Amino acid sequence: MELLTTNNVWMMICTALVFFMHTGFAFLEIGLTRQKNTINILFKNIFIITVGLLLYAFVGFNLMYPTWGANASGYLGDFVFGLSSPLTAEGTLDLAYNEGYTYWTDFLFQGMFAATAATIVSGAVAERMKIGPFMIFTILYVGFVYPIAGSWKWGGGFLDQLSTPFYDFAGSTLVHSVGGWAALVAVCLLGSRIGKFKNGKIQAIPGHNIPLATAGVLILWLGWFGFNGGSVLSADPTLTSLTLVTTCLAAAAGGVVAALVSTFMYKNLDLTMFLNGILGGLVGITAGADQMSPTDAILIGGIAGALIVFAVSLIDKLKLDDPVGAIAVHLVCGIWGTLAVGIFGKLASGAQFLSQLIGVACYAVFCLITSFIIIFALKKTIGIRVSEKEELEGLDAHEHGMDAYPDFRLNEH
Amino acid sequence: MELLTTNNVWMMICTALVFFMHTGFAFLEIGLTRQKNTINILFKNIFIITVGLLLYAFVGFNLMYPTWGANASGYLGDFVFGLSSPLTAEGTLDLAYNEGYTYWTDFLFQGMFAATAATIVSGAVAERMKIGPFMIFTILYVGFVYPIAGSWKWGGGFLDQLSTPFYDFAGSTLVHSVGGWAALVAVCLLGSRIGKFKNGKIQAIPGHNIPLATAGVLILWLGWFGFNGGSVLSADPTLTSLTLVTTCLAAAAGGVVAALVSTFMYKNLDLTMFLNGILGGLVGITAGADQMSPTDAILIGGIAGALIVFAVSLIDKLKLDDPVGAIAVHLVCGIWGTLAVGIFGKLASGAQFLSQLIGVACYAVFCLITSFIIIFALKKTIGIRVSEKEELEGLDAHEHGMDAYPDFRLNEH
Amino acid sequence: MELLTTNNVWMMICTALVFFMHTGFAFLEIGLTRQKNTINILFKNIFIITVGLLLYAFVGFNLMYPTWGANASGYLGDFVFGLSSPLTAEGTLDLAYNEGYTYWTDFLFQGMFAATAATIVSGAVAERMKIGPFMIFTILYVGFVYPIAGSWKWGGGFLDQLSTPFYDFAGSTLVHSVGGWAALVAVCLLGSRIGKFKNGKIQAIPGHNIPLATAGVLILWLGWFGFNGGSVLSADPTLTSLTLVTTCLAAAAGGVVAALVSTFMYKNLDLTMFLNGILGGLVGITAGADQMSPTDAILIGGIAGALIVFAVSLIDKLKLDDPVGAIAVHLVCGIWGTLAVGIFGKLASGAQFLSQLIGVACYAVFCLITSFIIIFALKKTIGIRVSEKEELEGLDAHEHGMDAYPDFRLNEH
Repeated sequence: MELLTTNNVWMMICTALVFFMHTGFAFLEIGLTRQKNTINILFKNIFIITVGLLLYAFVGFNLMYPTWGANASGYLGDFVFGLSSPLTAEGTLDLAYNEGYTYWTDFLFQGMFAATAATIVSGAVAERMKIGPFMIFTILYVGFVYPIAGSWKWGGGFLDQLSTPFYDFAGSTLVHSVGGWAALVAVCLLGSRIGKFKNGKIQAIPGHNIPLATAGVLILWLGWFGFNGGSVLSADPTLTSLTLVTTCLAAAAGGVVAALVSTFMYKNLDLTMFLNGILGGLVGITAGADQMSPTDAILIGGIAGALIVFAVSLIDKLKLDDPVGAIAVHLVCGIWGTLAVGIFGKLASGAQFLSQLIGVACYAVFCLITSFIIIFALKKTIGIRVSEKEELEGLDAHEHGMDAYPDFRLNEH
Repeated sequence: MELLTTNNVWMMICTALVFFMHTGFAFLEIGLTRQKNTINILFKNIFIITVGLLLYAFVGFNLMYPTWGANASGYLGDFVFGLSSPLTAEGTLDLAYNEGYTYWTDFLFQGMFAATAATIVSGAVAERMKIGPFMIFTILYVGFVYPIAGSWKWGGGFLDQLSTPFYDFAGSTLVHSVGGWAALVAVCLLGSRIGKFKNGKIQAIPGHNIPLATAGVLILWLGWFGFNGGSVLSADPTLTSLTLVTTCLAAAAGGVVAALVSTFMYKNLDLTMFLNGILGGLVGITAGADQMSPTDAILIGGIAGALIVFAVSLIDKLKLDDPVGAIAVHLVCGIWGTLAVGIFGKLASGAQFLSQLIGVACYAVFCLITSFIIIFALKKTIGIRVSEKEELEGLDAHEHGMDAYPDFRLNEH
Repeated sequence: MELLTTNNVWMMICTALVFFMHTGFAFLEIGLTRQKNTINILFKNIFIITVGLLLYAFVGFNLMYPTWGANASGYLGDFVFGLSSPLTAEGTLDLAYNEGYTYWTDFLFQGMFAATAATIVSGAVAERMKIGPFMIFTILYVGFVYPIAGSWKWGGGFLDQLSTPFYDFAGSTLVHSVGGWAALVAVCLLGSRIGKFKNGKIQAIPGHNIPLATAGVLILWLGWFGFNGGSVLSADPTLTSLTLVTTCLAAAAGGVVAALVSTFMYKNLDLTMFLNGILGGLVGITAGADQMSPTDAILIGGIAGALIVFAVSLIDKLKLDDPVGAIAVHLVCGIWGTLAVGIFGKLASGAQFLSQLIGVACYAVFCLITSFIIIFALKKTIGIRVSEKEELEGLDAHEHGMDAYPDFRLNEH
């Protein structure tokens, strides 16, 4: 009982920290885009966290952690509506549910994760996607795609049943790549912002509030204490504290390497690349944060930081317009972190690497197909892109009838 | 000892989270008002938390949690100056004080609550109240009115001694309505801001920094993990985790319903209403967060969200000028949440509903009278409203000689 | 095991809170300076936390907590590269390392402290120091000077071996003065910003974003729950909760007294002084937060608040240009708090006061000399000050090729 209480306290704190990440995502996304789309971005983020949590209570939690029932193959859990807490004979909550947390904590911690996948997409489609279709996408992706995909591993599904089970500690693949693949699909189907590629040249569109973007990254780093620390699913002293150390060292290494590489390549001390390097390091360590030594963590994070610089450049060259670098951070580093579990740390082996590859491939196929179906159907029916006039004047005025900063004099662009 | 340590850790963290709510309140209030009054609002908020904490140490804590002594009727506790910790025979802190927390944690957690009541008023009187009288009001309301009112229930006073005791888990009434009633009185005595009602028509006065307002709401939601979670007064796994789930689901439902209703009524995806709906859901669940099922929580929060939209509209029609919607959020939803304890959840009964009504009425009478006396006396003596010139030019320049954003070019309004 | 788990949870949370202080420092520093140097300040802060953490893993932690080996005199620990966790015979982490935390938690908590010293300097040199030399200074000061200085007391070195040991609970001297002395040296060697002292008169250079500065102080206060609360090095209920109470009361008293004194002296309700008073109170209580009664804490904090007002004025008169008041807050109040341990609370005695004086003097000498050598060498080789053109146009454009707020119209100054 004492230990359950302590474990549950830790898990509740981690839940609060993961919730706080939504403030970080919101700050990062508005900071790296133009002021005229700020209200729209904030609205999307608030929509995601509120609707995401309700959907997770209605269908997501049961779908992601199924009893599997007749469906022993582990591909698709059962649809059961709503939450139903396990009770003792006396009608109180059954604390034997798990030694690390109560049923309620379990739901809330996992619910906070669920909304994250859609938030990743939000950043990639910023400044040009209609709010209505984005809301529909969010409902379908958070309510159904994310929990089904999650069940394959965390719900004990088929990827957990491989002879060498696929490993994804806190979601480099299950959360970040799942969001990243959909971001890639959405960016391809949406097209780039007006003015991003002129006469074949890449035009930088600077973010309008770098202090908030920086605070967003620091808040995300803080939230990762809960994202990774809570993924231990108890307060086990060894695992939780090691996880925090590997998480922080990977973040630091990712930032420093990204700053070094970008300074070397572009002769400029680029704060945005520094920030994205930190995020890349965090995403990279997430799949194996409990399996790595500090040295492993620094290497994984550092490589993620280098990858960020090259990925951002490559995505630009492919004429894909990802305003906040979501694809580089969440997809590229998510894949890297997942594969790294087969290369570094306690689980490293050829068999593990193969399982990691299988896992990455399964999520790629499922997420590419589902997000393509959803977004393509939306494109062909109600349309996904705002009008040219709305894009130029900003989504805030057109979709929300509000300004983010009405007292300030602003530049047009 | 192990369990006390764990409980006390949880309560200290909740204390920190409630403290952080003051950042949320400050962001929300400045975000929803004009830039020319930003310094003034920040000064008020910093004043409230610092002076509120000192006053709570000097008189509030003893007044709110009295031994009652000769005063067995439970209306007015004893005035005892300062903190005096219970000691063991050896002179160390007596840990038998409570199984959930130490004497010091108890004081600090309750002290963080105390300042909140005045902060609610701060939002309602923003942009036109003189700072001097506001500081005097704060001292009297936080130092005396709040703890006396609080003692009636949380201090074991007469409302706790009803045959069916009045129930207010974390303060829908004891904190939010106590602030809300004073906000209503202050708004009536102050009058509306210049330009708010022109020729009988309502003029929107847009807030100047919506990203900070949004961050404020997310920080308040985060803080509510501690506000409600800590009101369990221990780390009891069942109660704390259920409380976090009901709190978060009510917040989500409040936001979504407010957004739906306001979109239906005004054909506009209104971010501010979404945000206030979240806060309404949070205030609404606060009285019974430990007594509700997830379904109850979604209903209570959702109804609170709808109430917000209608209340904001009604308050406008009554020509009451509440810049941040404090009356709708804290008073209307505070009353709703308190009554809901008699309708939903484990305590629901006619007798409970009656006790809730009695409680609401007692706080209404006491808070209306005391806040009227204080603010009316201030109005008739030193005056409570700034000059027209000061209001038009902004309180920052006149009361503080400072600008919030000196490097930015600003619009006049 | 239960108790270790609980203690370790508390220490991990405190680690997270101290990490979050870097967001507070960043907000405070950019808020109190001009917009044209915002990117530069954010870059420095992100550099400090990432590089600081890596350096602490490479050399700092071992240098600060040495085995002392042959070096029994306790002046200079052994250089051992990298982290090496203590293992049991079975190869798992040895949890007998400490009853309050694991090896990993110990490293991370102390690592978060390490970066703070350089952050203090960052504020003092803002708006005119070249980024390159600042990065070199940071590497040397965080990597070597701070851990060597820290080892003298927290590592069990010679100041811990005095007959009446020097006492510094959470770092009024070991962290804040160590940063403060270097800030003083840097300010002297750098000179004042262009326009700060014109024809012998002091010109105020107002900070460009006071909401962020205020949020920064509130975040720092929140972080201090972890900074001081974690310095108990366990979750001991009595000590942790007393520490939080003394910390918060000192902060409140510091703010209120600074506001009162500055209002009395300058007839102005100065928000910046209120904020710096809070920080002064926090720095002041840090050396003895676990040894003081609430009354002691209010006195120590209140005196710190008064000291802030006079120190800021004195530093101005000495024509030292410290844009954020770092010297007044961290050095002056750091010394005051350290000496206060000999005057107030459980340790108060003449012998203790003498030991405190010795400690202050040792750190003064060591930090003045080391920071002078580093910064003077940098000045004479690569130079430490940006060109006049760069200073006037802002460091953001010249060192980073980025604007912090490209969508906003800005004033030149």
